Amino acid sequence: MFSDDLDKALATFVLANGAAATGAKVTIFFTFWGLNVIKKVSKPKVSKDIFGKMFGFMLPSHSGKLSLSKMSMFGAGDKMMRHIMNNKNIESLENLRQMAIDAGVEFIACQMSMDVMGVDKAELLDNVTIGGVATYMQRADEANVNLFI
Amino acid sequence: MFSDDLDKALATFVLANGAAATGAKVTIFFTFWGLNVIKKVSKPKVSKDIFGKMFGFMLPSHSGKLSLSKMSMFGAGDKMMRHIMNNKNIESLENLRQMAIDAGVEFIACQMSMDVMGVDKAELLDNVTIGGVATYMQRADEANVNLFI
Amino acid sequence: MFSDDLDKALATFVLANGAAATGAKVTIFFTFWGLNVIKKVSKPKVSKDIFGKMFGFMLPSHSGKLSLSKMSMFGAGDKMMRHIMNNKNIESLENLRQMAIDAGVEFIACQMSMDVMGVDKAELLDNVTIGGVATYMQRADEANVNLFI
Repeated sequence: MFSDDLDKALATFVLANGAAATGAKVTIFFTFWGLNVIKKVSKPKVSKDIFGKMFGFMLPSHSGKLSLSKMSMFGAGDKMMRHIMNNKNIESLENLRQMAIDAGVEFIACQMSMDVMGVDKAELLDNVTIGGVATYMQRADEANVNLFI
Repeated sequence: MFSDDLDKALATFVLANGAAATGAKVTIFFTFWGLNVIKKVSKPKVSKDIFGKMFGFMLPSHSGKLSLSKMSMFGAGDKMMRHIMNNKNIESLENLRQMAIDAGVEFIACQMSMDVMGVDKAELLDNVTIGGVATYMQRADEANVNLFI
Repeated sequence: MFSDDLDKALATFVLANGAAATGAKVTIFFTFWGLNVIKKVSKPKVSKDIFGKMFGFMLPSHSGKLSLSKMSMFGAGDKMMRHIMNNKNIESLENLRQMAIDAGVEFIACQMSMDVMGVDKAELLDNVTIGGVATYMQRADEANVNLFI
């Protein structure tokens, strides 16, 4: 999960949950903008350098702030999409993410992306572990299905 | 095929046709915006709720309306790309799609996306079948090459 | 590599280098906008038709001109990202690309994309070879990990 688009995050968790339902071991590696998908709503205060503060200011502070890749319309489209999904009895992004956690889907945050964007482990969901490209490659090598989203 | 960008749709069908040419069994799963790639030009009248009407109004009504992911320039770039491809004797998106159908490439539309966007099966090309994440996972598990586009 | 976003190009080379470090054979197939990632800074003069000239004028002329997929802010975000990476001692895109070349990562440029965009082989880095969808499919079929970026 490289992106932080609301629609792509939905697809990611639907796929992860679908795969986990078949009994498969599933890992999601969150890198670059994807870190915004797994930030806590209530984050502890952590010290940041000037760049970390800028990223913190400009990027979505948690999954509730994510935008659609298309038709976001300054947030109106995002609200509409969430409203429609609720209306059609489809689980919210946050519920789908929790279902993934409950199903044992592994969440790994990219160390390099955290360094670049000044994100602290304490700002990420509790189940998240940290890894690098070697961790990703090891998981990908073992996987039968592997996507860049 | 998650996206409905003209350029990514072209890549999808070129890849699908290339794989089919090697004798491989090919499936394209159209989800989210990707549904716009397989809508009929002349669609039967179907009843839609308010959301379905809004999506129908805002989204590309068929493949001829797709935009490039870059340099679309309110349609001028899209027209230019189609003109250049024609000029260089490269098949159009619609021809590439038909070639895929003729080569037996399986088209599956995502049930959940159809529900969310209020798309009816009658609005999609005749060869399209309907499936969900379990269908996708089953095909992906059997596949040697699998991409999220 | 379909995209020419600075962030996605960084991810591509980090992944390629990470895979090469494990001893794996790695190929990157550059198609569509991805051609902009492997253009020479100092390009020889080549004759172009009107479309080739237009693409040459509108597209990034080399990797130093690439933009982030988000927060590019007319180039300010791109500069900031490069500054931060340098500040955190992360290799630049150009260094990561050179490391990939030195590690024997194979670079293949898409013939059809070159035709459409009027890009000449002489404008691409010296290590680049040319191929089509059949070349891609052959490499992908042999690969264990395969991503559309």
